[in-house]
Amino acid sequence: MASKSKILVLGGTGYIGKFIVKASAEAGHPTFALVRETTLSHPEKSKLIETFKTSGVTLLYGDINDHESLVKAIKQVDVVISTVGGQQIDDQVKVIAAIKEVGNIKRFLPSEFGVDVDHQSAVEPAASFFNKKVKIRRAIEAEGIPHTFICSYAFAGYYLPTLGQENVTAPPRDKVVVLGDGNVKGVYVTEEDVATYTIKAVDDPRTLNKTLHIRLPANTLTFNELVSLWENKINTTLHKIYIPEHQLLKNIQESPFPANFLLALGHCMLVKDVCTNYEIDPSSAVEASEIYPEVEYTTVDNYLNAFV
Amino acid sequence: MASKSKILVLGGTGYIGKFIVKASAEAGHPTFALVRETTLSHPEKSKLIETFKTSGVTLLYGDINDHESLVKAIKQVDVVISTVGGQQIDDQVKVIAAIKEVGNIKRFLPSEFGVDVDHQSAVEPAASFFNKKVKIRRAIEAEGIPHTFICSYAFAGYYLPTLGQENVTAPPRDKVVVLGDGNVKGVYVTEEDVATYTIKAVDDPRTLNKTLHIRLPANTLTFNELVSLWENKINTTLHKIYIPEHQLLKNIQESPFPANFLLALGHCMLVKDVCTNYEIDPSSAVEASEIYPEVEYTTVDNYLNAFV
Repeated sequence: MASKSKILVLGGTGYIGKFIVKASAEAGHPTFALVRETTLSHPEKSKLIETFKTSGVTLLYGDINDHESLVKAIKQVDVVISTVGGQQIDDQVKVIAAIKEVGNIKRFLPSEFGVDVDHQSAVEPAASFFNKKVKIRRAIEAEGIPHTFICSYAFAGYYLPTLGQENVTAPPRDKVVVLGDGNVKGVYVTEEDVATYTIKAVDDPRTLNKTLHIRLPANTLTFNELVSLWENKINTTLHKIYIPEHQLLKNIQESPFPANFLLALGHCMLVKDVCTNYEIDPSSAVEASEIYPEVEYTTVDNYLNAFV
Repeated sequence: MASKSKILVLGGTGYIGKFIVKASAEAGHPTFALVRETTLSHPEKSKLIETFKTSGVTLLYGDINDHESLVKAIKQVDVVISTVGGQQIDDQVKVIAAIKEVGNIKRFLPSEFGVDVDHQSAVEPAASFFNKKVKIRRAIEAEGIPHTFICSYAFAGYYLPTLGQENVTAPPRDKVVVLGDGNVKGVYVTEEDVATYTIKAVDDPRTLNKTLHIRLPANTLTFNELVSLWENKINTTLHKIYIPEHQLLKNIQESPFPANFLLALGHCMLVKDVCTNYEIDPSSAVEASEIYPEVEYTTVDNYLNAFV
């Protein structure tokens, strides 16, 4: 039996990073997390780091902007997974440079975990954000670094508990705001499932130099279908407040950064149909539930039961 | 009488850019806006471009990522004001390079229009965002480009109509969410006033190579004072829902990008006291209402009257 790859996670205390670190350790990979020493004094992140230690994760101190610390960390592993935040997408050129320098990395997964940035038609400022991810993809390919790009669409744990409504802490029981006509399909994947599929992909030859789409069939549904599912569970019909596209574009135009960015992401996901408006091309991509049918993923239907 | 400087605005169809373009043209500056040709097909921005034309603004087609178009535009003017969006802060290194190449620019104002990024203590991902602006400041100084950095704090036209509450379209009349204890001072400046002061600064020797703080005395108030002002106008006491700092930090940690970014900005402005926790150092900075006492700025008090 081949031993499990050693995995380094960059951004491991971040939103999706913490799930990836946990899934890596639980799957038996020797797991390393590069964290800044200053992170230890952050009230929330320091708690997280304690749970990493308990799970046997090796903490390395450093930063992707500190080349020496980065190279030293990469030298210890086989696989690098970047989950750096949205403000640090560009900085991943430094990770690419360090991986090239070290030369022994079997797989690099850059920070993606959203829509397929090679298939999008977002308005600004989402367009510029996606283009940063595209540039990192092209740089990885140009350098010939073995890679996998993970497209995981919308985080279920963030969107479903509120059905994407602002300023609420539970799914709505009276009214719901619908962007566009609500007939565009989205894909909702729990953070735990994103992490499970990601860790499965790192040693899999089928995902080498490909995009892994976590486009789970049971979780691919229009916003109207999502609302309807919820309405059936609570036996209530919600009042729908529709925001037509032209109004949404006006709201984006009239909001400063980063509020316009959040709105532009909503426009992209729920109005422009960026999740499912293209076929998965087998020459360059695979779908997670097809190649890992053994994973019993959490369905949207089941997920919503917790809120009834 | 010296003729007015010719001004080029980059990002002129953006949130604050449109106010700057308008103020520049109204103040009698020959005004140029660099826009992408694709912008003409954007429903909202195309309307705006029509109003630019009516105001006598010269439209130039190009993009800051298209070096030739940028250099050609810069060659026609004396002053460059960048109002590019938050996803393009880094790209301003290209503007710096083009200004160096052209060599005739009397003043460059990079895209700032927020808190003083040299005096901040934000948590991620706001910290990384502010650091991008810091890097641009240092690059401008290192290249010896004459400059002014505009700190305009919070946009009144965005924050005041909702008192910073999510998912509302008017100031609240029943309850209000307060971040922290509400005792930290913020500064609220209307977009029109930001533009007026900015245009006054471009030809002013007193603002050369300095930071212009638009820290208007009548508009510098704590969130509790802001709420109290509003309560007095509507003769109602609002129910206050306090979000303590540790809860806010937890919410930031548990939200994906860019939702965590919006929360981190709120934390920075309303809890960390980044607006007024330092003195304006006369060797490196000036305050707008002190050097332009003739401007009758819109007070928060007056602004809120429109919503009673």
